Amino acid sequence: MAEIMTLGEIMLRLSPKGHRRFVQAGEFDIVYGGGEANVAMALSNFGMDAGFISKIPSHEIGQAAVNELRKYGVSTSAIVRGGARLGIYFLEMGAAQRPAKVVYDRAGSAFALADPAEFCWNKILASTKWLHFSGITPALGENAKQISFDACKAARDKGIIVSCDLNYRKNLWSLEEAGCVMKELMPYVDVLIANQEQVKSLFGMQAVSAEIKETEVDYSGCQSLCAQLRETWPQLQKIVLSLRGSVSGDDNYFGACYDDGAGFYHAKNYLIHMVDRVGSGDAFSAGIIYAIMNEFPAQEAIEFAVASGVLKHSIEGDVSVEGVEEVKALAGGDGSGKVQR
Amino acid sequence: MAEIMTLGEIMLRLSPKGHRRFVQAGEFDIVYGGGEANVAMALSNFGMDAGFISKIPSHEIGQAAVNELRKYGVSTSAIVRGGARLGIYFLEMGAAQRPAKVVYDRAGSAFALADPAEFCWNKILASTKWLHFSGITPALGENAKQISFDACKAARDKGIIVSCDLNYRKNLWSLEEAGCVMKELMPYVDVLIANQEQVKSLFGMQAVSAEIKETEVDYSGCQSLCAQLRETWPQLQKIVLSLRGSVSGDDNYFGACYDDGAGFYHAKNYLIHMVDRVGSGDAFSAGIIYAIMNEFPAQEAIEFAVASGVLKHSIEGDVSVEGVEEVKALAGGDGSGKVQR
Amino acid sequence: MAEIMTLGEIMLRLSPKGHRRFVQAGEFDIVYGGGEANVAMALSNFGMDAGFISKIPSHEIGQAAVNELRKYGVSTSAIVRGGARLGIYFLEMGAAQRPAKVVYDRAGSAFALADPAEFCWNKILASTKWLHFSGITPALGENAKQISFDACKAARDKGIIVSCDLNYRKNLWSLEEAGCVMKELMPYVDVLIANQEQVKSLFGMQAVSAEIKETEVDYSGCQSLCAQLRETWPQLQKIVLSLRGSVSGDDNYFGACYDDGAGFYHAKNYLIHMVDRVGSGDAFSAGIIYAIMNEFPAQEAIEFAVASGVLKHSIEGDVSVEGVEEVKALAGGDGSGKVQR
Amino acid sequence: MAEIMTLGEIMLRLSPKGHRRFVQAGEFDIVYGGGEANVAMALSNFGMDAGFISKIPSHEIGQAAVNELRKYGVSTSAIVRGGARLGIYFLEMGAAQRPAKVVYDRAGSAFALADPAEFCWNKILASTKWLHFSGITPALGENAKQISFDACKAARDKGIIVSCDLNYRKNLWSLEEAGCVMKELMPYVDVLIANQEQVKSLFGMQAVSAEIKETEVDYSGCQSLCAQLRETWPQLQKIVLSLRGSVSGDDNYFGACYDDGAGFYHAKNYLIHMVDRVGSGDAFSAGIIYAIMNEFPAQEAIEFAVASGVLKHSIEGDVSVEGVEEVKALAGGDGSGKVQR
Amino acid sequence: MAEIMTLGEIMLRLSPKGHRRFVQAGEFDIVYGGGEANVAMALSNFGMDAGFISKIPSHEIGQAAVNELRKYGVSTSAIVRGGARLGIYFLEMGAAQRPAKVVYDRAGSAFALADPAEFCWNKILASTKWLHFSGITPALGENAKQISFDACKAARDKGIIVSCDLNYRKNLWSLEEAGCVMKELMPYVDVLIANQEQVKSLFGMQAVSAEIKETEVDYSGCQSLCAQLRETWPQLQKIVLSLRGSVSGDDNYFGACYDDGAGFYHAKNYLIHMVDRVGSGDAFSAGIIYAIMNEFPAQEAIEFAVASGVLKHSIEGDVSVEGVEEVKALAGGDGSGKVQR
Amino acid sequence: MAEIMTLGEIMLRLSPKGHRRFVQAGEFDIVYGGGEANVAMALSNFGMDAGFISKIPSHEIGQAAVNELRKYGVSTSAIVRGGARLGIYFLEMGAAQRPAKVVYDRAGSAFALADPAEFCWNKILASTKWLHFSGITPALGENAKQISFDACKAARDKGIIVSCDLNYRKNLWSLEEAGCVMKELMPYVDVLIANQEQVKSLFGMQAVSAEIKETEVDYSGCQSLCAQLRETWPQLQKIVLSLRGSVSGDDNYFGACYDDGAGFYHAKNYLIHMVDRVGSGDAFSAGIIYAIMNEFPAQEAIEFAVASGVLKHSIEGDVSVEGVEEVKALAGGDGSGKVQR
Repeated sequence: MAEIMTLGEIMLRLSPKGHRRFVQAGEFDIVYGGGEANVAMALSNFGMDAGFISKIPSHEIGQAAVNELRKYGVSTSAIVRGGARLGIYFLEMGAAQRPAKVVYDRAGSAFALADPAEFCWNKILASTKWLHFSGITPALGENAKQISFDACKAARDKGIIVSCDLNYRKNLWSLEEAGCVMKELMPYVDVLIANQEQVKSLFGMQAVSAEIKETEVDYSGCQSLCAQLRETWPQLQKIVLSLRGSVSGDDNYFGACYDDGAGFYHAKNYLIHMVDRVGSGDAFSAGIIYAIMNEFPAQEAIEFAVASGVLKHSIEGDVSVEGVEEVKALAGGDGSGKVQR
Repeated sequence: MAEIMTLGEIMLRLSPKGHRRFVQAGEFDIVYGGGEANVAMALSNFGMDAGFISKIPSHEIGQAAVNELRKYGVSTSAIVRGGARLGIYFLEMGAAQRPAKVVYDRAGSAFALADPAEFCWNKILASTKWLHFSGITPALGENAKQISFDACKAARDKGIIVSCDLNYRKNLWSLEEAGCVMKELMPYVDVLIANQEQVKSLFGMQAVSAEIKETEVDYSGCQSLCAQLRETWPQLQKIVLSLRGSVSGDDNYFGACYDDGAGFYHAKNYLIHMVDRVGSGDAFSAGIIYAIMNEFPAQEAIEFAVASGVLKHSIEGDVSVEGVEEVKALAGGDGSGKVQR
Repeated sequence: MAEIMTLGEIMLRLSPKGHRRFVQAGEFDIVYGGGEANVAMALSNFGMDAGFISKIPSHEIGQAAVNELRKYGVSTSAIVRGGARLGIYFLEMGAAQRPAKVVYDRAGSAFALADPAEFCWNKILASTKWLHFSGITPALGENAKQISFDACKAARDKGIIVSCDLNYRKNLWSLEEAGCVMKELMPYVDVLIANQEQVKSLFGMQAVSAEIKETEVDYSGCQSLCAQLRETWPQLQKIVLSLRGSVSGDDNYFGACYDDGAGFYHAKNYLIHMVDRVGSGDAFSAGIIYAIMNEFPAQEAIEFAVASGVLKHSIEGDVSVEGVEEVKALAGGDGSGKVQR
Repeated sequence: MAEIMTLGEIMLRLSPKGHRRFVQAGEFDIVYGGGEANVAMALSNFGMDAGFISKIPSHEIGQAAVNELRKYGVSTSAIVRGGARLGIYFLEMGAAQRPAKVVYDRAGSAFALADPAEFCWNKILASTKWLHFSGITPALGENAKQISFDACKAARDKGIIVSCDLNYRKNLWSLEEAGCVMKELMPYVDVLIANQEQVKSLFGMQAVSAEIKETEVDYSGCQSLCAQLRETWPQLQKIVLSLRGSVSGDDNYFGACYDDGAGFYHAKNYLIHMVDRVGSGDAFSAGIIYAIMNEFPAQEAIEFAVASGVLKHSIEGDVSVEGVEEVKALAGGDGSGKVQR
Repeated sequence: MAEIMTLGEIMLRLSPKGHRRFVQAGEFDIVYGGGEANVAMALSNFGMDAGFISKIPSHEIGQAAVNELRKYGVSTSAIVRGGARLGIYFLEMGAAQRPAKVVYDRAGSAFALADPAEFCWNKILASTKWLHFSGITPALGENAKQISFDACKAARDKGIIVSCDLNYRKNLWSLEEAGCVMKELMPYVDVLIANQEQVKSLFGMQAVSAEIKETEVDYSGCQSLCAQLRETWPQLQKIVLSLRGSVSGDDNYFGACYDDGAGFYHAKNYLIHMVDRVGSGDAFSAGIIYAIMNEFPAQEAIEFAVASGVLKHSIEGDVSVEGVEEVKALAGGDGSGKVQR
Repeated sequence: MAEIMTLGEIMLRLSPKGHRRFVQAGEFDIVYGGGEANVAMALSNFGMDAGFISKIPSHEIGQAAVNELRKYGVSTSAIVRGGARLGIYFLEMGAAQRPAKVVYDRAGSAFALADPAEFCWNKILASTKWLHFSGITPALGENAKQISFDACKAARDKGIIVSCDLNYRKNLWSLEEAGCVMKELMPYVDVLIANQEQVKSLFGMQAVSAEIKETEVDYSGCQSLCAQLRETWPQLQKIVLSLRGSVSGDDNYFGACYDDGAGFYHAKNYLIHMVDRVGSGDAFSAGIIYAIMNEFPAQEAIEFAVASGVLKHSIEGDVSVEGVEEVKALAGGDGSGKVQR
């Protein structure tokens, strides 16, 4: 069992090659990923001791998902093996004005149907210092919701830091249902990762939206949201809000702001020509977790998290395959993309 | 609606490239197939007017399955669109002593959960002369079983010939359950396609097994099974039994015998170095249906059916992409594989 | 036979992978397409009842082209089978400052050499409401020219709407020859699709060129061209002019204007980072045909047509694989390319 | 200009991947080959100084063919550049009982339409010792026939050895036409390469057929054919007859016999599990040319030629990519296929 | 650190696709493997706790090798990171009469140049019960030889079982040199894995060769070799000799015999149509290690080892991706290759 | 031996597909390239008579490199065959803010270890008018340095024009070492190709840096560097300085200035959306050599060189596959990337 544990579902992702549409595909590229699994793999790629908590079928497709986690060094000993199927999602890459398209086929997955009693939290969290999950986990059904609460309570009892990425997915549950459940989970959360829209729509908070462009972003609304969040849940230690501005299917702005309890910070913004944006939020989450665990000063922390998220956009697949030095180089200002030789 | 209609489920098939094992795969080849869909596509490739009856999701993955059927000229107007998911099966090719491996993920498919009331048989079978299904269709659950009975009854009422391929799959239902249901369906069947093991295990009949090798096969047991089948279900017009002998994961013997009501015939046997054996039984079924509809003499009919099945082993995917002339050439004795130029 | 019939040649397109040049290619991606075939496939993807009129060899390469049409639901019953060869074109994708390159090998194709007597227009157009062709069809030789005239006359006799995309190709015929023939065909045309340069060079008309950029395009010259066209051919019901501005091999502006007889309209312009621009004009044609047949208000019609053309630039191959909802979403203003999940 | 010159057509070969059928192909593997080009490339791979005489279009597809020849070290300075198109052939690999299938699209190629006056034989053959062509070259049309005669006459005048592979192709000309032309060309031939069927059907000779199997082949008919050939065309120095026995689409026997003027020899036979049989006859021709030019003893010569042909069956594409040492090792008896490491 | 540790070099293997020759390759398939690494991965795939000892560069190519080991669950904590390069070998698959070809580029690898002092055996072998290496390891140079002796001595001191696969490679050292070194290492070996030729040529022993065919192998010479080995090195507990008979580049016989100290056994022989024979000896080694550690009866042990080796021939790459149940099924007699569904 | 000879090392380049990172790669694309080999291939593609001087192993991987040179028409007769290994470099493409990454594995290559006595300069340069090398060649070690001096001296003696691209690579040698050696080589150089940073850091010269953007570049510093270079090495005939401005990993500015002895010129600048920037400097070098050898006026010469370099960015691989007409079209102002059809 590892120092950082993440809890959630890992899925088989199937994507047509290049810019092909689903009906044009003669083959699918295979990736195994999911919000919390991605965070564990990203942290492991940063050299951290990370593990993943889930339930995965014992058949060969499940084994392939486990092997992908192991490949990146993630501890898989807390994974319960069994159940009928691995969740699947089909992803068609977007281009220009055409958005990427996701078809989910995740209902009835081994994790969604897992019995909460299959997870022995005393054992799973025995050597853990940080527990991470996202709003997707409790959204997967009654069992997964119970597992989320069980994990949070066990972490609280053991003094483990809990981070949560709100990660609202409209195809999994309604805003009302999500808001209700996430509000119940918030008292267990030490580090909140979210974006403005999620905070507003799930928690009913109000603020001027920061519209991210290359220059002159007005962060006052974000700062207000942080204040409201702290007022509602005073136990919150750190709040990070990622910011995205969509220029086209190929180009996005990406940035973030950070309330570390002592001050309010924002990172520089990036205009990104994207290769694959799936998992960039998870790379951002991994970045802030890494920065906090390694006690980066606040400004460096948020710059590192944003740089981690930015780099993910250039990487195929769900998983952020980045080294700490690369992220630091970008955070430190080298976005020139010069060949190193 | 077409002259020949087949009823069943079409699935997304995902296979690693070449001889790769599941955990070695970085991409999957995509095929859309299923027993009855394969028969419809094979018949359409033979130039027949064939259609497919099923329920397929309206999302892009479902559309891709519909497009595959259309590509081969199969009428798709009897397909109900809707439901949550397309059944999936993962196929790892075997080689030498290593068997092919199938992982099914077909539970909860649109067709398995279809409401029998969604199928208007008067309309679907309006211009139909032949209805084909296999034992997989009623095995898919209560709804699919009801749909199978509804189709058979409607066909009976309209004087449509019904063919059934027993096609027992142990992962879908028990021998007992299958035997019970198939016995109830048998009175509707005019043309039975099966193999010796299925007949014996599902219907409790006894006979010496024909062991297929290149020469000197003893077909007496097969002949006895045909007699027993006719005794039990006297409405049966034609009975074909395919025969397979497994030499290794790469090489099989394949042959068949045929009771057309007037006599008992067997085709010559083939030793096949296989490329992809999935769907070869369906190609055999399509062959016998084609031969009967085109009123081939009995010996030619069974030779054509076997040659159709044999050729499928050389073709990648579920679908038998064969022309009538090719099958006739092989049935007529040209198995030399000489380049035609 | 379908409600909308298009007349022309379908070719085998062979392209190196990615950005490879011809001499670097070890394999070619295969697409089957051609101006009018693309329009039929695009309309069928929009859910319309579309068919294609052509002559295609009966060999396997011809069959593959037919299968591609069928895959997208296009009726192929009006296709004459026979002739020696399918036209081929080799396409090398461009990038940045390097233009895409086309090598044609289409001379002597089955359609170019088809006997006009092989097409029975009474049968082909029996249930047709709209006939579409482009200037490429009569450019393919004397036979194809005759077939074009025959089709137009038959359509006129039957009161079928005729649309024509001028689509001048300098490698097929000279401006003089093209101008001469197209002027003879114009009296049969109800809906004209063209661009400014073609109208000016083929018909000898004069006007200030609209130079398309993101903002502030001067459409007065286009409006003048529409007026001149109506004066010359008063039977014309609708005129659409597409506009393209080339920024680089990767980036283009795209827009259009529309004279529907009652007013003059222009769509908003788009800056497009292109994946594959081949067939975008055909997607535009399909868009305006769809909009007119479905009686969209004029402004919505031209916005739909342009959005259809814009989306095609993001899609690999000749064929516009788009759904009506996607096009409407873009026409309605959502060009953000946000992932839908 | 090289020591050995071969004269003929090089084509673009397009093949579906693996065992896919044409209508299943989403991409084609690209090879450039043709009987005489293959011989030149094989000889160059053996370290000989070989060149190719043809006419090839100056566009990029033609350039790719030229580059393929250069890649293997073949001199291309005798190639006339120009003309409209490169001949194409589509090849679908066979498997088991399914034969390989070829669709030709070579009519109207640059070489077939080349003007005989474009070839300056004094210059082309200035430093040549050996000229090779096959029966395909004169079969390509009147121009190509004239070019064949011109080349043979020029070679005769210069004392250059001429080898000819009969290579009859029924889709290019009738047996009568071929027999008539080849008989006229025979007086120029020093080294004849053929098989029994060609000799009998083109020249009307009679003999018992040698049926090749692993053991005990009766070569008396072959010997008789050699005698008849020598009687008819006494200038013939060497005659080689290749022998093939087709077991299935995957497996063939291959052997040969040899009349070198002093004696009659046969090589050992091989049972071959074939990867790609196209070009194996050309590899055999290259083998015998190499052996004669390097003055191998007769038995070694025919063993080398057969081993060269046998090895080609294991190599993808038209071109025999073999080294002299490999061929010698096989000819010398090492057919075990042991890994060398 | 794991229960079973293997010591050696892991290399990057680069192979042309399919049956392409090196000069035909436009891309290489990537595998990471090496004798001892393969044994560790195979054992881990059998569910054992296995680790690998080596030195691997810290750059990305080295990391990819480490990730491959981790993917299959092998402990990588005993791997020293550093050094300049990862050894490479290029592998061209054989077919029919054409042998596979290996080009080594492994000189100067990180492991070959590793300083013996970099390995702390007390730590590495702290929880180890079994140490495995092959003759390749000491062949890699003076440093690697020293490391081999250090490891053996440490194992001896700790009472760890040592297995050694003789694995002579002529391109790494001469028979004399190898014989000299391996004789010095033999006193540390408990379980010897070899073949007849290696035992005879390295140790100068004499015996009749067992020639393996499907039936009636004479194992008396093997038995004699076992006796001679036990006489020379009485500490030897178990001796396994693998047997291979090469039919062609595609087909081999494979078998083995086993002297477990109590009796002499041989497994049944297999005729194998091979996909990739590299690593089959390592799969055999892993099989016997697994069988001994799990205390299989002697006959079952050698059957399991041979079945493990046989199955590897059907798997692409160096690594034996097999489950215990699969191997047992084959060892138990199911070599039919029937699809399981 | 050719009119233009280039001297250096050719390597095997291995790259993951698309934007994959090294650890994500399951296959590598293969390219053979190196600075001076690239210049020879580019010049040959321009129709010039170019050859390459190097030492390359005689094994199959070496042969593949030779074949690549031959494919593009480069004379390979001055290449010494032998030595143990071909240098390798691994290249991971960059994207957006992520830089491309190169891992070199070139130490101990056949060329780096070649004996200077293996090169007979009298023979190699017998018909040569121009010799080109870059700073990489002498950086490869003592032998390669000596070979560089030998070649330069021989060229000087024969009155051959010598061009040198400074091409400093920090991973091969230090600035001090490089400066020292290059200063010794400079007296032999007639045409110097460099960039500002190299001139300043290697030769210790000072000037204001030209910062390249789309408009208004201040070239005064460049002009000053040219003056200083001429002062130091008065034999210099022509000096070209390329200019690059990195916007991101995807986008660069590229331009150049030129001192031809009579005047100072600069080309227009380009903003390039890059496909593969490796080898663009070599394409630029080939461009200026072509322009000088064909006596282009100075302004046209530098425009041609820059256009050649710009186009390379759109081409995959190391080799600039460009035709003279394409480069002239771009240099003449057509950067629109319009499809030509």
